[in-house]
Amino acid sequence: MNFNEKILKATQKNQSVMCIGLDPDPKLMPDHLSVLDFNRAIIEATADLVCAYKPNIAFYEALGTTGLEILAQTRKIIPPDIPVIIDAKRGDIGNTSAAYASALFDIFGFDAATVNPYLGFDALEPFIKYADKGVFILCRTSNPGAEDFQSLICVFQSRTRPLFEIVAERAKEWNTRGNIGLVVGATYPEELKLLRQQHPHLPLLIPGVGTQGGDVGLTVKYGLGHEEGKMIINSSRQILYASRGSDFAEAARKAARNLRDEMNRFRAEQPPKYS
Amino acid sequence: MNFNEKILKATQKNQSVMCIGLDPDPKLMPDHLSVLDFNRAIIEATADLVCAYKPNIAFYEALGTTGLEILAQTRKIIPPDIPVIIDAKRGDIGNTSAAYASALFDIFGFDAATVNPYLGFDALEPFIKYADKGVFILCRTSNPGAEDFQSLICVFQSRTRPLFEIVAERAKEWNTRGNIGLVVGATYPEELKLLRQQHPHLPLLIPGVGTQGGDVGLTVKYGLGHEEGKMIINSSRQILYASRGSDFAEAARKAARNLRDEMNRFRAEQPPKYS
Repeated sequence: MNFNEKILKATQKNQSVMCIGLDPDPKLMPDHLSVLDFNRAIIEATADLVCAYKPNIAFYEALGTTGLEILAQTRKIIPPDIPVIIDAKRGDIGNTSAAYASALFDIFGFDAATVNPYLGFDALEPFIKYADKGVFILCRTSNPGAEDFQSLICVFQSRTRPLFEIVAERAKEWNTRGNIGLVVGATYPEELKLLRQQHPHLPLLIPGVGTQGGDVGLTVKYGLGHEEGKMIINSSRQILYASRGSDFAEAARKAARNLRDEMNRFRAEQPPKYS
Repeated sequence: MNFNEKILKATQKNQSVMCIGLDPDPKLMPDHLSVLDFNRAIIEATADLVCAYKPNIAFYEALGTTGLEILAQTRKIIPPDIPVIIDAKRGDIGNTSAAYASALFDIFGFDAATVNPYLGFDALEPFIKYADKGVFILCRTSNPGAEDFQSLICVFQSRTRPLFEIVAERAKEWNTRGNIGLVVGATYPEELKLLRQQHPHLPLLIPGVGTQGGDVGLTVKYGLGHEEGKMIINSSRQILYASRGSDFAEAARKAARNLRDEMNRFRAEQPPKYS
């Protein structure tokens, strides 16, 4: 089953377009709990509420030399029918990107990865070559600095438009295997709307609701694709750290259920784009 | 001693502007040799010939969950007076970039890191905050795909110019701690020339000579800064894999010495820019 099929199945089975970012920060976790035990409890409490999980590898590298082992074990705890997107934002020259892709897909067995477009096509190709895996290209990121370069007005094919739109255009062009998607932050709803209008069939991975301030209603309204399974909305801190007490897993489940249900209410309000 | 001072000292002591990329690829290494033993032999054979080492973290992640431990041990083998630049090309939203910066600088103890500008200032700031560490921002990379986005003509401060020039302009503006440099590929000599003219005092990390085809003479001619210690030319495969036999370390030393001496001959030919 390829990534697109897997995400569609999980979306339908769990009635959810919500992804949980598994970004363990020991400073915010309950005391005396290992990262692996924390992740296990979160996953057990939420696996029937999500369409995907998205660990950000930075938080594992920050744990030191054992971090990647904890990441590998976390991957194994997640039920096999839930796709796992590794948020790594990688991109390097060809032979180096191949090393990253092999690590993330062959060794760790992730279902999809985020990649950075700044180095261009040959940096992304080693990821795209894995036809069964999803590849989410950073397009319009959720942070304040996204404006610094992504919003620059550039000349492309005799027209001017912002860099992030050109990235999306190239992504579409490179999508010969049907496995490419875009990362578009919920914190920029107008850009999300525009990108969705331009690319009704591309999967969008949308971070930035919750702690970062993205609006859930606008995100669902603007992010919904013309097919089911093409919108993945991520939340991390709002769910993981709903409580620091011994009830953290229960609190995470409650926060996750509320957010999933909120997304579903907004989905139900939208005119049907797909049957 | 901060990164700039360390690189200047190593440049002068070893009479070298050459950095060796410690990118171990088991497929290209002598059989039956561990990565750590390979790295140790390469370092022992070349430590008096370089101004820096630059491990690319991708090659360590590709080794699996023990890869980062091998990277940490490699760091410790390198003599303390030789700066180590971790080639990680990181860049993520603020709190995540902080996790990366902490991992690379606090835990691993690297002297400098490469970062990707696509997410903008707040993705780079957690690195730049480490005033004693070097931060090399990807500007014009050495790969063919560099043209895809980096060469796009953009509008910036009412003038049009390629994206990579704007990245360099912003880098200069953000360089309030004096610890920022640029990554500029040797495979684009005209762009290297231009960037050096525009930024005579910024450190340049220049990959792409050797296997990637960058010309050593042009690289030295165009890359030389107005102060010593502001040009770091990297070579990886040409040195590491000079031989696959039991003489690999000796062959690496010979290749490294030849390349360093070639760089120095070209440096001697240049009109003096600094005393």
